[in-house]
Amino acid sequence: MAGNLIVLLTDFGYKDPYVGVMKGVIKSINPFAEIIDLTHEVRRQDVYQAAIILYVSTRYFPRNTVFVSVVDPGVGSSRRALLIRTRNYYFIGPDNGSLYPAATKDGIIGVYDISNSKYRLYRVSHTFHGRDVFAPIAAWLSLGISPEMLGERISVENIAKINIPEPEIIENNIMGKVIYIDIFGNIMTNIREELLANKIKHGTVLPVKINNKIITCKYVPSFSHVEEGETACYINSWGYFEIAINKGNAAEKYNIKIGDETTINL
Amino acid sequence: MAGNLIVLLTDFGYKDPYVGVMKGVIKSINPFAEIIDLTHEVRRQDVYQAAIILYVSTRYFPRNTVFVSVVDPGVGSSRRALLIRTRNYYFIGPDNGSLYPAATKDGIIGVYDISNSKYRLYRVSHTFHGRDVFAPIAAWLSLGISPEMLGERISVENIAKINIPEPEIIENNIMGKVIYIDIFGNIMTNIREELLANKIKHGTVLPVKINNKIITCKYVPSFSHVEEGETACYINSWGYFEIAINKGNAAEKYNIKIGDETTINL
Amino acid sequence: MAGNLIVLLTDFGYKDPYVGVMKGVIKSINPFAEIIDLTHEVRRQDVYQAAIILYVSTRYFPRNTVFVSVVDPGVGSSRRALLIRTRNYYFIGPDNGSLYPAATKDGIIGVYDISNSKYRLYRVSHTFHGRDVFAPIAAWLSLGISPEMLGERISVENIAKINIPEPEIIENNIMGKVIYIDIFGNIMTNIREELLANKIKHGTVLPVKINNKIITCKYVPSFSHVEEGETACYINSWGYFEIAINKGNAAEKYNIKIGDETTINL
Repeated sequence: MAGNLIVLLTDFGYKDPYVGVMKGVIKSINPFAEIIDLTHEVRRQDVYQAAIILYVSTRYFPRNTVFVSVVDPGVGSSRRALLIRTRNYYFIGPDNGSLYPAATKDGIIGVYDISNSKYRLYRVSHTFHGRDVFAPIAAWLSLGISPEMLGERISVENIAKINIPEPEIIENNIMGKVIYIDIFGNIMTNIREELLANKIKHGTVLPVKINNKIITCKYVPSFSHVEEGETACYINSWGYFEIAINKGNAAEKYNIKIGDETTINL
Repeated sequence: MAGNLIVLLTDFGYKDPYVGVMKGVIKSINPFAEIIDLTHEVRRQDVYQAAIILYVSTRYFPRNTVFVSVVDPGVGSSRRALLIRTRNYYFIGPDNGSLYPAATKDGIIGVYDISNSKYRLYRVSHTFHGRDVFAPIAAWLSLGISPEMLGERISVENIAKINIPEPEIIENNIMGKVIYIDIFGNIMTNIREELLANKIKHGTVLPVKINNKIITCKYVPSFSHVEEGETACYINSWGYFEIAINKGNAAEKYNIKIGDETTINL
Repeated sequence: MAGNLIVLLTDFGYKDPYVGVMKGVIKSINPFAEIIDLTHEVRRQDVYQAAIILYVSTRYFPRNTVFVSVVDPGVGSSRRALLIRTRNYYFIGPDNGSLYPAATKDGIIGVYDISNSKYRLYRVSHTFHGRDVFAPIAAWLSLGISPEMLGERISVENIAKINIPEPEIIENNIMGKVIYIDIFGNIMTNIREELLANKIKHGTVLPVKINNKIITCKYVPSFSHVEEGETACYINSWGYFEIAINKGNAAEKYNIKIGDETTINL
């Protein structure tokens, strides 16, 4: 049975009443539901960014948390609405791949097409499925309605997938990609801690090639181990190799974007 | 009796501790109160925008929700503080008209002047009635104190009113106004769905005149039915005629402002 | 025993999942915890601003509220993690002085070094102690674990301190400083109401010298007592002398920064 905690992730921003109204819908159905905002400032329609955020965040939430992720360029088109049951969690959102990395990591148990469900608002708009489809499903689920009642079980093969790219190792080079840039301009790559463990010592000055440009950074436990304005690289709090400038903005300075190729030469 | 759900709408923004402190005041009076943010980024002192947001949002909240709307250019002056009881809800805020459209739509049962109430903080500042007057009233109301105890009943004729303009129909022209622009730059008018029903077919290319400039848009179920960069018009999720650019910002491109005159030629 | 209300103050912003994940950690430990955001837009790494916000805000929260303040330029270095028990509240955060003014005002009862505690996440990152150290401590405290169990009692003399400067009075001059500028550009000084009481009458036009430049303002109960675009000065809602422009931005117009010297000539 689902617990009461519902976590919302959208690109709706904080200026309009969209998120507040989703919460109103949830509380109208389940007055005891508790709702937490993951963030509502996903870059507009960036399903990849939503996927990464879910992927790194979910494990910090209690068992049975219901994640509702609505970054939905295809709202109003015929894309399906999904509910994914995993070992520990529930994921609800449009069928555009953004739920997939987090769900796969936790272990998918069942996928449900909730497009035809009666568990939605009486009248469904063409442009606000967060309110009319996804919020109600989350609320009913948090009340204990089973996934089987909410939709029709479908095969995981039939859903859209986003895959977080795996780094390649060729000789002494680890070749990865930039997968996230946070508000501080810190540059997170897909290169996991395990790939570097015991291979680089703290204090080493490391050449990192991003888009054929060399960035020189000092490999340290955290950005506070270099002087202000200096470039640090380190394993970030999610366990990935990251480049940052102490009290500065590395992504701006080096003009880095999501997807940029990143090579560490060991 | 009022339920426990309190919804906050202000122009205080998210940078300062103003909203957090309002919540502290509420929880100090009623530790069981539940609080939801509608938004705190109403354009500074724009009582009209607050009115529109309340007007479209309230119906998505549970019965007995207490709405506290504090967009208050007249704070510190002698304007009254109001509590309005409607068929399903309570509305609390300064007497500047912003509660009026939502309250009227739901059906006003009673209006109370809560200016002289003892149910406020011991010391009332001249500049932060959200904290000192409106948050406490909401908290006491959510505890079950009746409107009659919180203030003096007054006539609805005596309060300030904002009216959302009604469109006019002259021959084949529906003449309305822009009433809201959201963070995506989508342009919402006051032209309701019913005025267009069965008069335009999806797929029609429609000339819409805003401020004597013609915008050509394709009438579709939602903006995802046009190509990226194209201009769509459709009935939005609140039931109003809206103009948007798929993955673009229509208000910026066409230089549209709230209040601009809008004519649809059928 | 600690109550359940946990208040978060950070410079993490609203774009990334950092704050949401802190809440997930808290709810994983104490499913009944209630969490309120004070603000997450403290200027990046500005421990002084965090100190001022806590200092003015805490008294509006219920007894036993747990304040978690994570503005932490030294994350990853060897600075300690602190829990301060005061007469009415608990304060948790890095040992950088930002808890000190609020804690001192409420009356410090005990200071605890929680650096070595087992009450943190299994694995502590070098860059996200808000999630790995401070959120868990707050959650355990809200469950009723005593400060003594969470850490080792240390002397208040050994912790970092930020002091809010006291104004000086020399003859007819009150010499203070700018200590906060809010999102509206209102300029708050450290000059308390008591220093002005009965010395200036409302309506007086007052020369205020900031950084050797004279600003002429009308002393009024609130900014709405001057015309649009005019400069007002008044006692703000926290009880401090403040300068603002009605519907304008005083800090921008007069080019004022935190720390600027401010002299009122009576």
